[in-house]
Amino acid sequence: MDRLDRQLQFAAEAGRLKGVLRQTVLTDPARRENSAEHSWHLAVMALALAEHAPPGTDIAAVLAMLVLHDLVEVDAGDLSVYASDSAQARQNAAERAAADRIFALLPADQARVLRGLWDQFEERATSEARFARALDRLQPMLENVRAGGGTWQAQAVTADRVMSKVALIEDGSASLGRFARKMVEQAVADGILAPASDRADARDAAGQGGTTEASSGR
Amino acid sequence: MDRLDRQLQFAAEAGRLKGVLRQTVLTDPARRENSAEHSWHLAVMALALAEHAPPGTDIAAVLAMLVLHDLVEVDAGDLSVYASDSAQARQNAAERAAADRIFALLPADQARVLRGLWDQFEERATSEARFARALDRLQPMLENVRAGGGTWQAQAVTADRVMSKVALIEDGSASLGRFARKMVEQAVADGILAPASDRADARDAAGQGGTTEASSGR
Repeated sequence: MDRLDRQLQFAAEAGRLKGVLRQTVLTDPARRENSAEHSWHLAVMALALAEHAPPGTDIAAVLAMLVLHDLVEVDAGDLSVYASDSAQARQNAAERAAADRIFALLPADQARVLRGLWDQFEERATSEARFARALDRLQPMLENVRAGGGTWQAQAVTADRVMSKVALIEDGSASLGRFARKMVEQAVADGILAPASDRADARDAAGQGGTTEASSGR
Repeated sequence: MDRLDRQLQFAAEAGRLKGVLRQTVLTDPARRENSAEHSWHLAVMALALAEHAPPGTDIAAVLAMLVLHDLVEVDAGDLSVYASDSAQARQNAAERAAADRIFALLPADQARVLRGLWDQFEERATSEARFARALDRLQPMLENVRAGGGTWQAQAVTADRVMSKVALIEDGSASLGRFARKMVEQAVADGILAPASDRADARDAAGQGGTTEASSGR
């Protein structure tokens, strides 16, 4: 099979991401978001928020990572960031198998490069990956605020659980981390996010079935 | 309003593109595609097909252009590439007004840069813009072939009309242009696309109401 055939087969396979629904509820239109739309929205955010990345961050690499980061959900589906550790371990294995299959549709040299970007996003070892991951965390929080609570309320997630996810935003962007922290505090003040529960077991229970800021599991 | 507020307002406005339906019919899932998904799929194609761009093409600029190119449809909606000249002139004016409004949500310095990318895409004066436009033409053709005819059949568009759009693909990428030409010929041979009509008035009639490879009108 020639290179172009392989490249087009990869692109066609990617198109199936339009059918993978995330937990996030959109307000306009009122329905669940799919992973293709989500990936595109993150790319827009990377362009609009580029100055919040650490100096020297390569925004082109961030864009490419964001475009590719959820491709594995064609096989593995979407999992809540509040899922249990065991569910996340299963998801990680499924995503890795999906990456093996999907990137291998490409010519070998390209498969290595694009799979390398996916691995980089997962490993969070570069400022590009950390900024991309911060956007991936921030976007569903913004949608929840816009929806007046969204999946936070539907899944009874409390502010302490949400704050534990803000750390990953702070890790990728100091200014976006500060913004997210204030936004979560404001959501509590506005009554659209429940304050921290002091029952640790309630938190664990919420974590099991919780489907709030959906993302690729971590 | 501070810069971050403006950047997030722009990103929120962009999110409305998830509600703009295109003419293109997807096979998996079976429904009409929206402009957000379409934009993301073009970005995937830019990564997979980068080697088909002319040497020296800046793929990062292509990615950014593709991510932004349909934002104006938040206000202007989507129009078929086979729409009449007068409908396309109205669409052009509506898109320009939308660009004025939407990019102005950003801080002025960023508005200039991102609007500049949008203008570049429209003007097709750079190899980046021409390659991006080629992908924007190719993607709906691929979906039509996958759908066994798709909107070609639904709208009774003939091969000569489709071939007239292949020129724009050839202009952005010689190899993708050759591929598209062969694909259209094969579609005729396979009976999923009607051969050229020899009645010029029939062609004009198809052009008026035709909704096939939906794109931003040109």
